[in-house]
Amino acid sequence: MSAGLPVLVINGPNLNLLGTREPEIYGRLTLAELDSLCVEEGEALGLAVDCRQSNHEGELIDWIQQARGRARGLVINPAAYSHTSVGLLDALAAVALPTIEVHLSNIHRREAFRAHSYVSRIADGVICGLGGDGYRLALRALALRLKTTTERT
Amino acid sequence: MSAGLPVLVINGPNLNLLGTREPEIYGRLTLAELDSLCVEEGEALGLAVDCRQSNHEGELIDWIQQARGRARGLVINPAAYSHTSVGLLDALAAVALPTIEVHLSNIHRREAFRAHSYVSRIADGVICGLGGDGYRLALRALALRLKTTTERT
Amino acid sequence: MSAGLPVLVINGPNLNLLGTREPEIYGRLTLAELDSLCVEEGEALGLAVDCRQSNHEGELIDWIQQARGRARGLVINPAAYSHTSVGLLDALAAVALPTIEVHLSNIHRREAFRAHSYVSRIADGVICGLGGDGYRLALRALALRLKTTTERT
Amino acid sequence: MSAGLPVLVINGPNLNLLGTREPEIYGRLTLAELDSLCVEEGEALGLAVDCRQSNHEGELIDWIQQARGRARGLVINPAAYSHTSVGLLDALAAVALPTIEVHLSNIHRREAFRAHSYVSRIADGVICGLGGDGYRLALRALALRLKTTTERT
Amino acid sequence: MSAGLPVLVINGPNLNLLGTREPEIYGRLTLAELDSLCVEEGEALGLAVDCRQSNHEGELIDWIQQARGRARGLVINPAAYSHTSVGLLDALAAVALPTIEVHLSNIHRREAFRAHSYVSRIADGVICGLGGDGYRLALRALALRLKTTTERT
Amino acid sequence: MSAGLPVLVINGPNLNLLGTREPEIYGRLTLAELDSLCVEEGEALGLAVDCRQSNHEGELIDWIQQARGRARGLVINPAAYSHTSVGLLDALAAVALPTIEVHLSNIHRREAFRAHSYVSRIADGVICGLGGDGYRLALRALALRLKTTTERT
Amino acid sequence: MSAGLPVLVINGPNLNLLGTREPEIYGRLTLAELDSLCVEEGEALGLAVDCRQSNHEGELIDWIQQARGRARGLVINPAAYSHTSVGLLDALAAVALPTIEVHLSNIHRREAFRAHSYVSRIADGVICGLGGDGYRLALRALALRLKTTTERT
Amino acid sequence: MSAGLPVLVINGPNLNLLGTREPEIYGRLTLAELDSLCVEEGEALGLAVDCRQSNHEGELIDWIQQARGRARGLVINPAAYSHTSVGLLDALAAVALPTIEVHLSNIHRREAFRAHSYVSRIADGVICGLGGDGYRLALRALALRLKTTTERT
Amino acid sequence: MSAGLPVLVINGPNLNLLGTREPEIYGRLTLAELDSLCVEEGEALGLAVDCRQSNHEGELIDWIQQARGRARGLVINPAAYSHTSVGLLDALAAVALPTIEVHLSNIHRREAFRAHSYVSRIADGVICGLGGDGYRLALRALALRLKTTTERT
Amino acid sequence: MSAGLPVLVINGPNLNLLGTREPEIYGRLTLAELDSLCVEEGEALGLAVDCRQSNHEGELIDWIQQARGRARGLVINPAAYSHTSVGLLDALAAVALPTIEVHLSNIHRREAFRAHSYVSRIADGVICGLGGDGYRLALRALALRLKTTTERT
Amino acid sequence: MSAGLPVLVINGPNLNLLGTREPEIYGRLTLAELDSLCVEEGEALGLAVDCRQSNHEGELIDWIQQARGRARGLVINPAAYSHTSVGLLDALAAVALPTIEVHLSNIHRREAFRAHSYVSRIADGVICGLGGDGYRLALRALALRLKTTTERT
Amino acid sequence: MSAGLPVLVINGPNLNLLGTREPEIYGRLTLAELDSLCVEEGEALGLAVDCRQSNHEGELIDWIQQARGRARGLVINPAAYSHTSVGLLDALAAVALPTIEVHLSNIHRREAFRAHSYVSRIADGVICGLGGDGYRLALRALALRLKTTTERT
Repeated sequence: MSAGLPVLVINGPNLNLLGTREPEIYGRLTLAELDSLCVEEGEALGLAVDCRQSNHEGELIDWIQQARGRARGLVINPAAYSHTSVGLLDALAAVALPTIEVHLSNIHRREAFRAHSYVSRIADGVICGLGGDGYRLALRALALRLKTTTERT
Repeated sequence: MSAGLPVLVINGPNLNLLGTREPEIYGRLTLAELDSLCVEEGEALGLAVDCRQSNHEGELIDWIQQARGRARGLVINPAAYSHTSVGLLDALAAVALPTIEVHLSNIHRREAFRAHSYVSRIADGVICGLGGDGYRLALRALALRLKTTTERT
Repeated sequence: MSAGLPVLVINGPNLNLLGTREPEIYGRLTLAELDSLCVEEGEALGLAVDCRQSNHEGELIDWIQQARGRARGLVINPAAYSHTSVGLLDALAAVALPTIEVHLSNIHRREAFRAHSYVSRIADGVICGLGGDGYRLALRALALRLKTTTERT
Repeated sequence: MSAGLPVLVINGPNLNLLGTREPEIYGRLTLAELDSLCVEEGEALGLAVDCRQSNHEGELIDWIQQARGRARGLVINPAAYSHTSVGLLDALAAVALPTIEVHLSNIHRREAFRAHSYVSRIADGVICGLGGDGYRLALRALALRLKTTTERT
Repeated sequence: MSAGLPVLVINGPNLNLLGTREPEIYGRLTLAELDSLCVEEGEALGLAVDCRQSNHEGELIDWIQQARGRARGLVINPAAYSHTSVGLLDALAAVALPTIEVHLSNIHRREAFRAHSYVSRIADGVICGLGGDGYRLALRALALRLKTTTERT
Repeated sequence: MSAGLPVLVINGPNLNLLGTREPEIYGRLTLAELDSLCVEEGEALGLAVDCRQSNHEGELIDWIQQARGRARGLVINPAAYSHTSVGLLDALAAVALPTIEVHLSNIHRREAFRAHSYVSRIADGVICGLGGDGYRLALRALALRLKTTTERT
Repeated sequence: MSAGLPVLVINGPNLNLLGTREPEIYGRLTLAELDSLCVEEGEALGLAVDCRQSNHEGELIDWIQQARGRARGLVINPAAYSHTSVGLLDALAAVALPTIEVHLSNIHRREAFRAHSYVSRIADGVICGLGGDGYRLALRALALRLKTTTERT
Repeated sequence: MSAGLPVLVINGPNLNLLGTREPEIYGRLTLAELDSLCVEEGEALGLAVDCRQSNHEGELIDWIQQARGRARGLVINPAAYSHTSVGLLDALAAVALPTIEVHLSNIHRREAFRAHSYVSRIADGVICGLGGDGYRLALRALALRLKTTTERT
Repeated sequence: MSAGLPVLVINGPNLNLLGTREPEIYGRLTLAELDSLCVEEGEALGLAVDCRQSNHEGELIDWIQQARGRARGLVINPAAYSHTSVGLLDALAAVALPTIEVHLSNIHRREAFRAHSYVSRIADGVICGLGGDGYRLALRALALRLKTTTERT
Repeated sequence: MSAGLPVLVINGPNLNLLGTREPEIYGRLTLAELDSLCVEEGEALGLAVDCRQSNHEGELIDWIQQARGRARGLVINPAAYSHTSVGLLDALAAVALPTIEVHLSNIHRREAFRAHSYVSRIADGVICGLGGDGYRLALRALALRLKTTTERT
Repeated sequence: MSAGLPVLVINGPNLNLLGTREPEIYGRLTLAELDSLCVEEGEALGLAVDCRQSNHEGELIDWIQQARGRARGLVINPAAYSHTSVGLLDALAAVALPTIEVHLSNIHRREAFRAHSYVSRIADGVICGLGGDGYRLALRALALRLKTTTERT
Repeated sequence: MSAGLPVLVINGPNLNLLGTREPEIYGRLTLAELDSLCVEEGEALGLAVDCRQSNHEGELIDWIQQARGRARGLVINPAAYSHTSVGLLDALAAVALPTIEVHLSNIHRREAFRAHSYVSRIADGVICGLGGDGYRLALRALALRLKTTTERT
């Protein structure tokens, strides 16, 4: 992690299989490549990006909680837990950090149950359908938002 | 844990942030204070209270299962998992211990999805909206119930 | 009624048959016994408990309205009217007294239409499934709440 | 009331207007004529029929409760309360008397909300669409049922 | 078939198993006994009753159609087809004969899908929950109705 | 009541608390003041206004029934019973008088269950959201309508 | 049947009553007349039309299956089975012949349950509301379609 | 337009056909007559009424937007767009002028889809079922409301 | 436009792109070709066909209104507005001309929201899934219907 | 049929087209081959398998009824009737034989209406998605179950 | 418009009021400022941005259609029409250009009816909740996507 | 694990309590016995069976992911997670191995929420209601399927 405002990028279940899993839906970028892409984009934006992935809902909640006081913002792709986890929603409400939700695919073009995300109820912004670019835009959105916050102070 | 009938108090996800998380909804009591309050109330009621909290659904299921043969009753605040976890329901059905469900806030005055709890389908009693006092009342309900059971024998 | 903070306990339709009506659901306690139990518990808690029962929705609304300025808090078991009476909800909203809703049985383990209570939208707390003990706990909850209020002043 | 097994016929709201109210739906028989018809039919069947009507849900509940120990069976036309009263359902469940539900009109040919009756969940039999004849048949059904019960003893 | 106004009693699928099929729901009367009971009751009422049963929806429709010009009224227990057959509804609408629908059990106390009957949308009257007595009452209702019609002419 | 066409203004449950009950929703006018306002407006319009209020559904039904032959029109604010009372709907259908339904608040801006009124299915007109002015307009609507009716004759 | 491309016209339940059944909905044309009309129209279009009608779902399925290899296209009015028969849908999917669905009445102007047709999920085209003319147009549509298919080959 | 507080009356699609279109639903008043009636009523109330009608949703939105700074209040009959236009709702929310929604017919007595109006979510008051009189009452409601506002200042 | 009974063919939004837009759904015919086809078919049927297309709901409503007194019948493909426009439904109800609704594709084989058309509630007939042929059949249906009407006079 | 415990295999509508009908869904096995496969598997398992297929719901009901007293168990693929036939459900409930439901395709991966089977409410076990192998496994399940039953005796 | 790949930015109804309309939801940026911001961001990204706004659904459809052959991509904020316009969806499907949907506010945190957008079913990506920044990110997404497309060629 | 094609058997939450947990639903077989039964059955079928159980959704996802490249097929009983876990569905879609879903009980005969399984959307086959035998049949199904696959190569 380079210098800059600390930011956490959290990836949910099955995103560790990125690039190999249903590439027609999720693209050919691997998670390692996505992490590098985020770190680089973060550097360009003055953000120190820390990337994590877990298949465990509880671990994702733990990480969100730990972000309080350590990170200035969150980018989260809750993946499958978007649609079923009230726990992630509550954790994000509790830490009250600027949060951008990202989805690789356009969840509105898939099965009906994927169109609803509990996390969207608390996220500041939501970006979907733009693949890896979505993460870069999310970091940029966070940077713009943090800058604003900083300037206000 | 002092002497008395062993009872388990289980707290679900994000309750470790109690007191700091959205105090207008959940109050200003911390989890440590809540645990002390439960232990004290338990002592007054002849119950040896063991308090645990986890953000992991699987860990909560593990603890409920382990209660069989060790505890005489359960007080559980499933928090976010109330609304989504069939696993907790099944675990409680399996151990078949006297169980009181507690919610700090009145879940019927919040978002519609919070009004339904899978755990309520198996709990003996449900108490909500009374903050930390709800736990004290739940322990009292358990004590009354266990006493009855004991006396019957 | 002994000295103490005046509190009203209101029982809805068919609760006058308590003890004789479907005892496998509602228990064997009669309404007279329940009233005594409430008065005694009230005395122990410094509350002067006044118990009433009616099968008439309008009479229940009248009593709630009259509680304004006379009682410091309400314990209400709206029974069948829980599920259908917007009038009780409006009356409770109008008098704005501390209110605890009680149900003898766990309404979440019965027919689906019993799971929703209009009164829960306005009650401070809800207790269900604990039989006559539920009333004692409700009075205790009220006492804790009134004490807090008093102490704050 | 002549000699015979005592039976209560309960008519719900607006049935006092019978004969004058929307005769194309409810027919031209007045309530007094319907009551006479029931008493006569009862006499022919060995039943002492007592007919009552009220617009008050609470009063209907009171009467059902009082039937316990006084009447051997009930014929009830809950009218508008069919569709909204859990209280009548609970009262009927509590008294546990043989009960036949009657509707003058065929409720399945009218507005959708009239097709569901809470009372039907507890009634032994339901008869609708047969106007005043429905009451006669209901009393006959009760007589057949009571006879059976008597003979069994 | 004795002399009298010709009336058709139609029984739907699985009613040929009556008396042996789930007697706790449908009673111990066999179909042959039920048919006799109907013929006898018909004789007492001045009706010449013809009883038929089929498991085939198409055959039931054929019989209803053939009743036009041959029978003066219908008693029908559509059994399982009540809930799924628009074809029976259309056939009954086409022949436009006085029709009483009968169900042995109270369909409102069973699975939710049994509460709706397409046939009820066209029947003059509906009787359920009264076992074999329901058929007798249905014939009586038909007799009363035919008499009325006859008298009017 | 001064001379003029007799008109009944019926207020439903909890409207006796007007002015003191949730004034941010219902305004600061008391029921007595509202009654005076109606009587005065009625005088100006040539209507003799009789105002009544009850918390009892049955009493409201009684009053509607008694209006037949005594009043020439009705203004009714069914309040909480709007959403749950088929009995009021049936009573109004039975008396078949010109009827204007009034709600103080705009029921379409509140909880979803308040948006539906059974009474609206029978009322000639519905006015909501205009506070006490709504009653004045309702009386004016009634006057315009009665005048038309009178003139037609 | 005259020479021409063989085509099957299948009519479902109760259409044998055409002309006599609810003529305000279905018109005054009899089934025999409709069959003649179809045969004539077919001749004009170079189609050898074979018309059949059954009240039996199974027989309709049999006929559709037999059409494979014998007919070049289907016109079907599934009548009541439109709304309930997955079996007809599956049969049509299995034979994979050009199929036009016809309804005499406009099913979208009648009861809600008539608006959905399983057969429409597999039919090439759907024509409704045009009475007997609808069959002529359906045959014409089939002729246009078969011509296209023939020409392509 | 005469002197007075400027007020806009906006009529939605198909209201230009008033008087000729389905008079049994909408009455025999033409739009020109309705406009005159509104202007006259406005003059009596001290309002300068400007009446417009369009079949174009976009034009209605344009007019609402232009009302800002020009008119002091709005009377709107959104007609068919009531049920489908979020755009009108947003425009009304944006201009934030006192707004009364009017419907000529009682929309609660017609097809179910007509019972919901997006505009009702933002309107101050809603008047329906009173034909042309509804506009007069709406203007009066606006006048009363504007007077209040003026007096407060 | 040649001589003949004047008929209007109205095409809704995006149909101007016909032939280029998703040809696998809508076919390869352009709108100009479709218009020619309609005019030619009209000539053969004795109809003077006037074809119009607009993307504007308001303009479509205007045209329908103007058809009164000018055209003897309508063929309309409301395209996207089928599913959302109450305004078109109201306009068609107001002009009360013989109307045939056409859809190029079979709307019952596509997304669920395309299966419902407001226009179908008022159209005399509906034809879908037959591409350009559907328009020819619609004109033929109109011709048959107008002939009938003419002959009746 | 060879010696062994008699077992009935019942196939519902359109399964006679197996192998030729939509092979990408149902596979290439013909019904004759499937029957042979079942008989052979039965022999290996000590079961005398009798295979039948019908497109007629009534005939399927007849066969199920006749199985009572003749067969020791049933394997049934109700095909299209799975989703619509309460009659099959009732017949299976009446005969109360060990029953395994089979579907060739995985009905949970197809249209939503195929996911619900009335028959599953009564079947002991359900097997789907395994093509012809599903029948072999169903027979094996039946054999295991019958053996158990036999051994218990 | 400067040199660069031509891109169209389309703003839907009421966005012309930006900056003045409910700034707590939509922010304080005016539409003119937003347009400038888009043009500038476009220049930095090599895009020639053309910005348009209309309150008319038909005009928005016209513009989308005209973009074919003129623009290389679309950014669209359909505003109120997101939730109700199938016409926009069809237009976007017809032109098949890379499309990014933008919403100023997070539509998932507002009224339930705002959570569904027809446009999302066809858009490549969706960005919401990020105010004016959302447009910048949408243009960037488009640039990244166009670059990719260009490079691939 | 003996030699053979490697296959993974995954058991979800609370299945470790098998044999002791609600034996009337789940039977008396313990998990250890079930594992032995699977290993033995596997040996007989040429499969090397590896059995695992976890209460943690994340751990189950981990195991499914690790199966890629290690196992040739999966048997999974997702238990409570069947109904709530999109994560398991996504993991199974990602690894794309032959998968058979098993449930001990017939989930269609229990609470409504148990009838839907996310996993069924991706599983090749589903077997339920057959207790421990279901696992044996699932392994057999897998063996048949793998053999087919192997033979094809």
